[in-house]
Amino acid sequence: MTLTLGEICRRAGGDLDGDPDLPIHGVAKIEEAREGELTFIANPKYLKYLSQTRASAVIVPKNAPPAPPHSLIRCDNPYFVFMKALVLFNPPEELYGRGIHPAAVVGKDAELGKDVSVGPHAVIGEKCSIGDGTVLAAGVFVGKGASIGRQCTLHPHVSVREKVIIGDRVIIHNGAVIGSDGFGFVPENGVYHKIPQVGTVVIEDDVEIGANVTIDRATLGETRIRKGAKLDNLIQVAHNCTVGEHTVIAAQTGMAGSTTIGNNVRIAGQVGFAGHMSVGDRAVVGAQAGVVKDVQPGEMVSGYPARPHREELRREAASARMPEMLQEIRLLKKKLSELEERMRKNGC
Amino acid sequence: MTLTLGEICRRAGGDLDGDPDLPIHGVAKIEEAREGELTFIANPKYLKYLSQTRASAVIVPKNAPPAPPHSLIRCDNPYFVFMKALVLFNPPEELYGRGIHPAAVVGKDAELGKDVSVGPHAVIGEKCSIGDGTVLAAGVFVGKGASIGRQCTLHPHVSVREKVIIGDRVIIHNGAVIGSDGFGFVPENGVYHKIPQVGTVVIEDDVEIGANVTIDRATLGETRIRKGAKLDNLIQVAHNCTVGEHTVIAAQTGMAGSTTIGNNVRIAGQVGFAGHMSVGDRAVVGAQAGVVKDVQPGEMVSGYPARPHREELRREAASARMPEMLQEIRLLKKKLSELEERMRKNGC
Amino acid sequence: MTLTLGEICRRAGGDLDGDPDLPIHGVAKIEEAREGELTFIANPKYLKYLSQTRASAVIVPKNAPPAPPHSLIRCDNPYFVFMKALVLFNPPEELYGRGIHPAAVVGKDAELGKDVSVGPHAVIGEKCSIGDGTVLAAGVFVGKGASIGRQCTLHPHVSVREKVIIGDRVIIHNGAVIGSDGFGFVPENGVYHKIPQVGTVVIEDDVEIGANVTIDRATLGETRIRKGAKLDNLIQVAHNCTVGEHTVIAAQTGMAGSTTIGNNVRIAGQVGFAGHMSVGDRAVVGAQAGVVKDVQPGEMVSGYPARPHREELRREAASARMPEMLQEIRLLKKKLSELEERMRKNGC
Repeated sequence: MTLTLGEICRRAGGDLDGDPDLPIHGVAKIEEAREGELTFIANPKYLKYLSQTRASAVIVPKNAPPAPPHSLIRCDNPYFVFMKALVLFNPPEELYGRGIHPAAVVGKDAELGKDVSVGPHAVIGEKCSIGDGTVLAAGVFVGKGASIGRQCTLHPHVSVREKVIIGDRVIIHNGAVIGSDGFGFVPENGVYHKIPQVGTVVIEDDVEIGANVTIDRATLGETRIRKGAKLDNLIQVAHNCTVGEHTVIAAQTGMAGSTTIGNNVRIAGQVGFAGHMSVGDRAVVGAQAGVVKDVQPGEMVSGYPARPHREELRREAASARMPEMLQEIRLLKKKLSELEERMRKNGC
Repeated sequence: MTLTLGEICRRAGGDLDGDPDLPIHGVAKIEEAREGELTFIANPKYLKYLSQTRASAVIVPKNAPPAPPHSLIRCDNPYFVFMKALVLFNPPEELYGRGIHPAAVVGKDAELGKDVSVGPHAVIGEKCSIGDGTVLAAGVFVGKGASIGRQCTLHPHVSVREKVIIGDRVIIHNGAVIGSDGFGFVPENGVYHKIPQVGTVVIEDDVEIGANVTIDRATLGETRIRKGAKLDNLIQVAHNCTVGEHTVIAAQTGMAGSTTIGNNVRIAGQVGFAGHMSVGDRAVVGAQAGVVKDVQPGEMVSGYPARPHREELRREAASARMPEMLQEIRLLKKKLSELEERMRKNGC
Repeated sequence: MTLTLGEICRRAGGDLDGDPDLPIHGVAKIEEAREGELTFIANPKYLKYLSQTRASAVIVPKNAPPAPPHSLIRCDNPYFVFMKALVLFNPPEELYGRGIHPAAVVGKDAELGKDVSVGPHAVIGEKCSIGDGTVLAAGVFVGKGASIGRQCTLHPHVSVREKVIIGDRVIIHNGAVIGSDGFGFVPENGVYHKIPQVGTVVIEDDVEIGANVTIDRATLGETRIRKGAKLDNLIQVAHNCTVGEHTVIAAQTGMAGSTTIGNNVRIAGQVGFAGHMSVGDRAVVGAQAGVVKDVQPGEMVSGYPARPHREELRREAASARMPEMLQEIRLLKKKLSELEERMRKNGC
């Protein structure tokens, strides 16, 4: 596929500083780009590498200096424009067949919108509702009475349990489970009795959920993933949790029951949340943190138990000096004894 | 649905102190309950909130004082009675169809009990045995020669591998894998050779297993989950592990090979067990702990590496003071030098 | 099944010191072996237990002393020879049916080699290529244009996404997902936009992948698991990662994007890698470590953040003495004050 730089610029955004007729054959990372390709530099401090790239054109921050012989596209958010160029060269493909595959099973009273695709061996329960243009790939399971919005893609082997509600343009990767029972039991004489989990899960618009994620239904009420949140693979969301709008969570993080995460929060991988606590908007949580109490809006926490990131770094630095501290304490004790001895000898 | 308080009390347990004819429309948590609903207070210290709830009736500990205008149900374990009331208002629904779906595949010489349900695209291997009343939902796979007891529910996409043995009333959530090969290899000249995993997995009665859990079969012998144990989502149980009776394990915990967990143990989320070690009955393990050696019966451990919880708290407190300790050591050194200097000057 | 010790020795390797006609009925671990069985001792320091085992024959290191009445097989790697004997007594069984099951769906232009088995409800996409002798069990999904080599086994419910490339003799356990989208988004005005993940995943020969593992496809280029690597259950491999040859990784470990792991590395369970970093050949990483910077070849690291294992042990030991250090600092301060006071009194 070949596009002129002018056309890329018009469709992906940015201001062209260079040859609009330059033919571009593809996009690539700066260290891998070859002649005839387009790349990008998002961070001004890497502009110095411009002279080394073999790319013919580069997307750069607005105020970047000219860099002949490279043609430039200047813009506010080079990564964003690059992403759009990437889409131009990789238009979304049809991964899964169209229409209702004859080997799919659709329950009675299920309502399917226009242009819904249902793959082989997918199962749609009774009284489900599936919005226009949604794709349910091979082997997807949708439980009784669940509702899925428009333009969603559920990749193979996704399970959506009974009564779960999913918005529009939601993407769910293979093997994710939405709406399994919350982990709730009452002990009575050393035996655990199951508390029926009669609540549900609500996934709002534009959410993306990774492979083999598990999101449990609420005991009563709902577990909710708000608009635009992005969850990586193998994440656990327990009953009655809420994940805020445009919050991103990296892989293998887990939330215990009734954790409430605010909007625009960024959470790294393998983090644990203790449950019954809340994380404020725009907070940042470091990898492998163990969060046991509320995090304030905008706060950055890390460590176990999680504390303000700066304090964690201070502790970490102090901890590196512990063996040395032991040494110094020993030395101080010795010197002090010597002083005492000397004073005693000198009778003062 | 409406039930009288008298009927609820008779069916769920407890002593009625109030109007037996009071119509109750549902159950809810204390902060969400509305008029006409039933709620509960398990902890006596929250009895003070009784005056604020809009619920018409409340399940309370036996010795709670009267609280007009609320009708009360007094009992030893309010949470347990509440759970039973919750079941009354939410009788178990039939999630999956009855009978053997025509799109299921049942292998030859498989023995199916009475009232077994097999969903679409489920596969039952040769020589399997499935007990009375068990439900195998859509897409469930049961390997050759596996045996599943009575009244079990295997939710969609569960995999039970060859020869695995499962007891009665076991619940397994979507995507869980029971009986995958243990992780065993022999290195020989820098190359790893697979050790055939010829053992199996035994799941006893009344166990519940969460979504996307993985339980590996034993190398030789068996991996065993004992009666009444409850496993949350995304847990890893390696080959030759044993989980004791009525033990509860929260999400994302992992056990390396040959870990033995006792009875009535409580394990929080994201815990790791190093393998070839044992945890005594009634022990408690804190979240994200890394357990590398035996835990005594009744002991409470936390931290990495896991140690008695009190010691962990002491260390944690001392660790908070490390930057200050560094400061004090510096100060002590300075003062000591000054003293020495003074003594030298004064000739003593 | 009964084999003579002589035959076992001939087929599994090692030098026989004992009765070649001894009938052997099975193999077992030393503490569980009964008369008529074969066991092994890999570590010379356990040779003292030889006198206690009921096994009739034992595989031992080359220079082990005679141990009548036991017959011995002497060799360089007793565990390896034991593994081969284990295979003799447990020849690989056919777990899944032969041929293409009528309830499988094979897309057009898919190329299937000789003796390929495709289970019920498996789906093979258009233009896939499946090598000779490969087994795709029930419910396996292979996306459009994917390629799988010879003699592979994909257990039930495995998902292989579009265009993924898999080598020969690869084993993938139930529910694993190969080729889900990498977790890549560009923020623009507080909203995250999906970066199309147009790269792929390459799995080389002789790799084994555990149950419910997730391996994401690359944004551009490839995520690669090299020859002979072994991945345990529930592992997360993010986009653009590389796992080296003959590297073993225990369960629940996660790698953030663009992590590069060398050859013959050993990684314990629940480890996290921060991404955009590399681990040298033959390195060893302890359980639950949080690796945030490069690890040198042959280095052993542990802890959070991961540091050389010896340093971690030193810190750990010093940390145990922190409460005591606090005490000593307090004492030093007191003594110093007393000295000062005394000096002041004595006018020096």
